[in-house]
Amino acid sequence: MQTAYRPIRIALLGAGSVGSQVARLLLENKEELAKRVGTELQLTGIAVRDVNAKRDADLPKELFTEDAESLIIGSDIVIELIGGIEPAKGWITLALNSGADVVTANKALIAAHGSELLGLAHQLGAQLYYEAAVGGAIPIIRPLRESLAGDRINRVMGIVNGTTNYILDQMESTGADFQDALSEAQQLGYAEADPTADVEAFDAASKAAILASLAFHSEVPVEEVFREGITSVSSMQIETARQAGYSVKLLAICERVQDSLVVRVHPTLIPLSHPLAAVRGAYNAVFVEAESAGQLMFYGAGAGGPETASAVLGDLVSAAKRHLAGGPGLSDSTHANLPVASIQEVRTRFQITLAVQDQPGVLASIANEFASHGVSVETVAQSAGSDSAAALLTIMTHSALEGDLEKLAQSLEKNDFVVQVDSVIRVEGI
Amino acid sequence: MQTAYRPIRIALLGAGSVGSQVARLLLENKEELAKRVGTELQLTGIAVRDVNAKRDADLPKELFTEDAESLIIGSDIVIELIGGIEPAKGWITLALNSGADVVTANKALIAAHGSELLGLAHQLGAQLYYEAAVGGAIPIIRPLRESLAGDRINRVMGIVNGTTNYILDQMESTGADFQDALSEAQQLGYAEADPTADVEAFDAASKAAILASLAFHSEVPVEEVFREGITSVSSMQIETARQAGYSVKLLAICERVQDSLVVRVHPTLIPLSHPLAAVRGAYNAVFVEAESAGQLMFYGAGAGGPETASAVLGDLVSAAKRHLAGGPGLSDSTHANLPVASIQEVRTRFQITLAVQDQPGVLASIANEFASHGVSVETVAQSAGSDSAAALLTIMTHSALEGDLEKLAQSLEKNDFVVQVDSVIRVEGI
Repeated sequence: MQTAYRPIRIALLGAGSVGSQVARLLLENKEELAKRVGTELQLTGIAVRDVNAKRDADLPKELFTEDAESLIIGSDIVIELIGGIEPAKGWITLALNSGADVVTANKALIAAHGSELLGLAHQLGAQLYYEAAVGGAIPIIRPLRESLAGDRINRVMGIVNGTTNYILDQMESTGADFQDALSEAQQLGYAEADPTADVEAFDAASKAAILASLAFHSEVPVEEVFREGITSVSSMQIETARQAGYSVKLLAICERVQDSLVVRVHPTLIPLSHPLAAVRGAYNAVFVEAESAGQLMFYGAGAGGPETASAVLGDLVSAAKRHLAGGPGLSDSTHANLPVASIQEVRTRFQITLAVQDQPGVLASIANEFASHGVSVETVAQSAGSDSAAALLTIMTHSALEGDLEKLAQSLEKNDFVVQVDSVIRVEGI
Repeated sequence: MQTAYRPIRIALLGAGSVGSQVARLLLENKEELAKRVGTELQLTGIAVRDVNAKRDADLPKELFTEDAESLIIGSDIVIELIGGIEPAKGWITLALNSGADVVTANKALIAAHGSELLGLAHQLGAQLYYEAAVGGAIPIIRPLRESLAGDRINRVMGIVNGTTNYILDQMESTGADFQDALSEAQQLGYAEADPTADVEAFDAASKAAILASLAFHSEVPVEEVFREGITSVSSMQIETARQAGYSVKLLAICERVQDSLVVRVHPTLIPLSHPLAAVRGAYNAVFVEAESAGQLMFYGAGAGGPETASAVLGDLVSAAKRHLAGGPGLSDSTHANLPVASIQEVRTRFQITLAVQDQPGVLASIANEFASHGVSVETVAQSAGSDSAAALLTIMTHSALEGDLEKLAQSLEKNDFVVQVDSVIRVEGI
């Protein structure tokens, strides 16, 4: 294709599943991409640790190099797909300083150092895109950054980890327990051999930090995100929830509470009628509540090579068009700079399941405990416990302070009538 | 707020429900918007037909003017919210020619003259934004324009008209017939006194044309969109569909079929398990299937003053940032220029309901009609007809050509065993 502009030189860092897919699409769809951008996107090289490692036969051997720095310095746009903090951070910094724009899918890096890198990009008049860092192919960064830029977001709730959604969905639909559902997810390739990052919600916490900082124009350090994984979610908990009309989901919740932010990730009950309850399997979805726009939801595959590659290429086309246009890129800002509040200050509803002795006076005693901790009860359901001597109470509270709830739970553990506090789970979306 | 840049002058054309809301938000959120953009957004005037008409008391009287042209010529960004073709088109043309960028929510205009206006904007290095034209506050234009710019979209299916979704949802959940559901929608303000544009799918057809042109980089004239409204959808049809596991939705469907496009709007059966089936009330949703990104869905309120105003302000912030940055805007392109195919060439599945005589040999005769027209049957269910002499056959076909189906339906009407062809409805999403 003939164009008035010289080609845009693209450096790719990393040749894993996403990297290989991006390289393949850049080569295969060269003509089509050139038409969309207005000039050729020229893949000048792929930086890898070992050029002799076995790779995708579709990719020309001469593209690979171990000299990432030289590759970066000669490029217009650098695509970082190696993941992790270093050397990714150093290379992105080098790219920005040498005048290149950057596209990355690195959620850990953006969560930990996003505001520093975005600040550097802004200062240099460069662009830093990271749509693929949250929600795979789902366009969520761009809508938050741009479409809702004139609105005020109150709340973001997302299913942002496909592995845990798959596991919880399997537990719900088949009655499997956590370990069996995890093993199945591992066999199917939805979960890694070491599933910690997913099931302990480290991955979701990174994404929550990114979503919160964008939605509320504030710096949200990932260490300040409250994090609780799904390893202790039981099949009984899911069954109890289902009977009461709820689904259990691992939600990343970012909300503005007066003049501070609450950012948390934990297993959550949501009503079956809520759009997030219908998100099955390994799908992701982000539900946004904004002052004028009302309720919005973005749904799609949250991970996978081709899906993430699609998001990377979307960013690349944007970066390339702006590169041609010559203007500085859009920058994020943390001008609002709201502080992150402690989880203790969060108000939410709770469902509490207690194994109690089946004796007269139990309910009165329990009700007293709740009242004396300032936690108001909405409903109590009693059922037969597994042990013949004990009954099971499922209690739904009104909105209560997390801090009060914690004290209540400790106090209930010591109550003579209470055999065991079986579960405490937060409830949203009512 | 002190900034390094002079204010950006904003002209607003129209002071209806969306216009008033946009003006109010611009004035109320002045400080916050200035922080987000990097300079002040100064509302310089609001063009209306009659400055003495009664209006929102929050808006300063001195902002109103009847001289739209002078207002336009002195502006950096013009927001067009008067709707319809003229004078909107002339004013947008004037704005672009006088160096301003334009934000519009005018779906009729974009559907009819979008490629002409976008071409003019591109030629002048100006920007034309229209996120609010489809799906109210749902960011759908930007994801199609930018996020999926590096991917290949195969299909877009949308619930893009809230009025008809509300009516069909009411018919499904209460068993009401079309007229009753329409009257209720009118009383609640979801439908206009003259509901033609909604119920005959003219509104949805405009949006389908816009979505198709964006998704497939082609010019799609609204007259080439196949259009069938919901006025003949019966409560029995909905009940039959429900029993078979389907929901009836008015869908705008845009798809690539080999080297041409099919763009159509009609009542459609979709399985209850499909994400679009869960879109209730007056909500909108757009479901996208892309080669790499897979299935995506965008969900939210499709209309309403505040929601549409949110989308307009999002576009305004983008336009203002790019205005500051100085580079030319993103342009759409119709480089692919795929032709629009006739509805006759569409392949889809159909559900056909026939009132037939309850006699031996009926099924064989009907099956013969299907076979001789090249339409393959998947399932047949027989139930008692309303008339004691007749039985009801509900037939689900495999994928068949629309043209063949039409001939089959005509032939069935003449078949001696067939009392009446009760309904023929297309089926998608399986």
